[in-house]
Amino acid sequence: MENIKAYVSQHKDRFLNELIELLKIPSVSADSAFSQDVLNTADAVKEALSKAGCDTTEICETPGYPIVYGEKIIDPNLPTVLVYGHYDVQPADPVELWDSPPFDPIIKTTDKHPDGAIFARGACDDKGQMYMHVKALEYMTSQGELPCNVKFMVEGEEEIGSSSLAWFVERNQEKLSNDVILISDTGMISNTQPSITTGLRGLSYVEVEVTGPNRDLHSGLYGGAVANPINILSKMIASLHDENNHITIPGFYDAVEELSLEERAEMAKAPFSLEAYKNALDIDQEYGEKGYTTNERNSIRPTLDVNGIWGGYTGEGAKTVIASKAYAKISMRLVPNQESEKITALFAKHFESIAPKAVKVKVTPHHGGEGYVTPIDNIGYKAANKAYTKTFGVPAIPQRSGGSIPIVALFERELKSKTILMGFGLDSDAIHSPNEHFGVFNYLKGIETIPLFYKYFVEMSK
Amino acid sequence: MENIKAYVSQHKDRFLNELIELLKIPSVSADSAFSQDVLNTADAVKEALSKAGCDTTEICETPGYPIVYGEKIIDPNLPTVLVYGHYDVQPADPVELWDSPPFDPIIKTTDKHPDGAIFARGACDDKGQMYMHVKALEYMTSQGELPCNVKFMVEGEEEIGSSSLAWFVERNQEKLSNDVILISDTGMISNTQPSITTGLRGLSYVEVEVTGPNRDLHSGLYGGAVANPINILSKMIASLHDENNHITIPGFYDAVEELSLEERAEMAKAPFSLEAYKNALDIDQEYGEKGYTTNERNSIRPTLDVNGIWGGYTGEGAKTVIASKAYAKISMRLVPNQESEKITALFAKHFESIAPKAVKVKVTPHHGGEGYVTPIDNIGYKAANKAYTKTFGVPAIPQRSGGSIPIVALFERELKSKTILMGFGLDSDAIHSPNEHFGVFNYLKGIETIPLFYKYFVEMSK
Repeated sequence: MENIKAYVSQHKDRFLNELIELLKIPSVSADSAFSQDVLNTADAVKEALSKAGCDTTEICETPGYPIVYGEKIIDPNLPTVLVYGHYDVQPADPVELWDSPPFDPIIKTTDKHPDGAIFARGACDDKGQMYMHVKALEYMTSQGELPCNVKFMVEGEEEIGSSSLAWFVERNQEKLSNDVILISDTGMISNTQPSITTGLRGLSYVEVEVTGPNRDLHSGLYGGAVANPINILSKMIASLHDENNHITIPGFYDAVEELSLEERAEMAKAPFSLEAYKNALDIDQEYGEKGYTTNERNSIRPTLDVNGIWGGYTGEGAKTVIASKAYAKISMRLVPNQESEKITALFAKHFESIAPKAVKVKVTPHHGGEGYVTPIDNIGYKAANKAYTKTFGVPAIPQRSGGSIPIVALFERELKSKTILMGFGLDSDAIHSPNEHFGVFNYLKGIETIPLFYKYFVEMSK
Repeated sequence: MENIKAYVSQHKDRFLNELIELLKIPSVSADSAFSQDVLNTADAVKEALSKAGCDTTEICETPGYPIVYGEKIIDPNLPTVLVYGHYDVQPADPVELWDSPPFDPIIKTTDKHPDGAIFARGACDDKGQMYMHVKALEYMTSQGELPCNVKFMVEGEEEIGSSSLAWFVERNQEKLSNDVILISDTGMISNTQPSITTGLRGLSYVEVEVTGPNRDLHSGLYGGAVANPINILSKMIASLHDENNHITIPGFYDAVEELSLEERAEMAKAPFSLEAYKNALDIDQEYGEKGYTTNERNSIRPTLDVNGIWGGYTGEGAKTVIASKAYAKISMRLVPNQESEKITALFAKHFESIAPKAVKVKVTPHHGGEGYVTPIDNIGYKAANKAYTKTFGVPAIPQRSGGSIPIVALFERELKSKTILMGFGLDSDAIHSPNEHFGVFNYLKGIETIPLFYKYFVEMSK
């Protein structure tokens, strides 16, 4: 694999243009208005996999959006790598905050990306990182460097809970059998300091509806005499945290594993500047659970955040109305051992219990997923670390991420194999935000590093 | 005026059709998208006034929407009645909750309106009630029954704070000089029990903006470590009421006049069924300030209600985002002696003071108005009561309303005359709500009653 660097620089422009074409399709899984685009993206990924050298590729129907599957089996006795990624993207709104159209990709340089970055929804999460694996496969097959079997499973519902993927995996254990699962859907510390994500948070996501009077009312004639659903919802949301920002849902922390001081000290070694963090977000003060650092709050601790709230008159000017209904989307990030379904049930029970008689409350679960921790002593982790060390010149640092990839825990349960999270994005890439981007350096470095993982993993498997 | 009843029933259909035409114009003053419609409505009102017998009518330009003015002076030595109304309407949203298009009026019968009611935005508030006065004038002029001078002042910004009206009144005291001001922009107890509104609440209306991070963030990577503006806004809103639903803004109650037990006992005599009230709104329990009845809470007590709230992802499905900003529209209903501007300042000071350092807060005043109380011993009130007694067969009951007509206090200050609030709507007419309507009975009864007010007022003025 000595010529991998040369191969990447030789095909650089084509690699970028192919990704840009893929990014032009608005595959927003959360909004049914884009359903045809999501399906078209699946077809584009299938075609890319065949071109990259898969012997068989297929669009696997599911109850939801299809799974794109592809494989190249060179020898049943050799190890098999299962690559997972997703071709759906987050909604782009608020679109008005994008400097360029979210589905009209352009390459611009930034402080963090002097070689340029591709700006588009999905550039990093996850089309760009998924496509690195397609191009790495192209290199290995075209150059006769593929050292083992490979399977691809690319889904279209990651941003809405991967429920169809779970359905698919449970029914295809044989087809998906593998020795290691490889995913690039996370980040690394910086372009000079690679890291491997060894922990993920779980997720419980619910939508709540508070109903007061059966119709919107004049706030003068009724104000003060009836429960205002917006005021009540605000009160209920406020009560979900105490003065130390602990979550007040009974039983919420029961399963939370407390890390040892040693582990916390180990985590604290990762380079981090609170000042730089606050400056990057333009905030005067950080905020969170008492007794934990910023990096602990967003990785090893569970959280509860309102992701959206709406009710009453939100148009121009003033309307003196008491709304009939108020709504909120609320998500909880969970740590390993907290079970998503159990937490969702605890939330629903508690939220209904704190509602005053003067309103009616409905809690609708959206989706969830379990947390996950990868041991750093398995060969998958070691192979990945050796690959990073070779291409970046320094070893990777193991890191807990605050994000969730709900299906990683499912993979281990159903497929009995470990997942290695080789991320090449940066926290500053604004995934889920306006102006999401992915560094050209990171994209190409990923394509360069992935084949080495295959090489070392096969060597270590012997 | 013996033939008034006959005249009304003879012209009933035309009176209805003329009002329906006026209701078809969507004069939503809060939304600039409708500005041309608002202006067209002013022209339509001007034309209606000339047809009804005004000698002079004009469109008076202001910094905002124009005031429609009309007058008929028959003898400078006779008393002058100044009629006030507004031709603008509330926004119609949520439009999807209307059973028929808000600006495509239809007449349907209801339990409360067996003779039918006109369903349209503005049917009751205030186009329908304002147009009763136009038709009453038509009767008096066409039948030679006008006993005094009359002036009309119809504005287009009542639903957004009447700021241009204040500007106009301050500059036209001479033109607007009068002996009594007559307004139909309130309600009555029922179609068998008329009432006259003797008190109005003031209003302070603000919009608040809470800013956390400078961009939307991924709730997994940042959740728990940064202040979520929606959670913070909810906390701040919740803290504005204590456990007894008293408002916690320091100084908020300082100017509030406490009614004597006698006055409260007098109020309590008005027919009212809490069960019927709760059933009408489909609520299991009323809600409000401890120590006061439902009718006291919505009339003699000040309130604080969130009229609208929004932030984050409010679309279909789930988006795991921490919003950069959250917003709310908040209004406070004030009682006589509470000064709107002072309360707005108290709110802003308090709201900024309770914001954690981790967010930035902006408070923008929308508009306000002062409360008002009419004595029941002046001839204006007595003439109105005699008119109701004649047409309804029973005397009217004096009633405090929870609503606000911000300019009534201004009229007394600038024009030195009392305002009589002859309302013909019902609380169930759903003003400011979807499916606003106005009873055909109420509309015609108003046209029948108003001329009698003129007659008795002139007689009592001698």
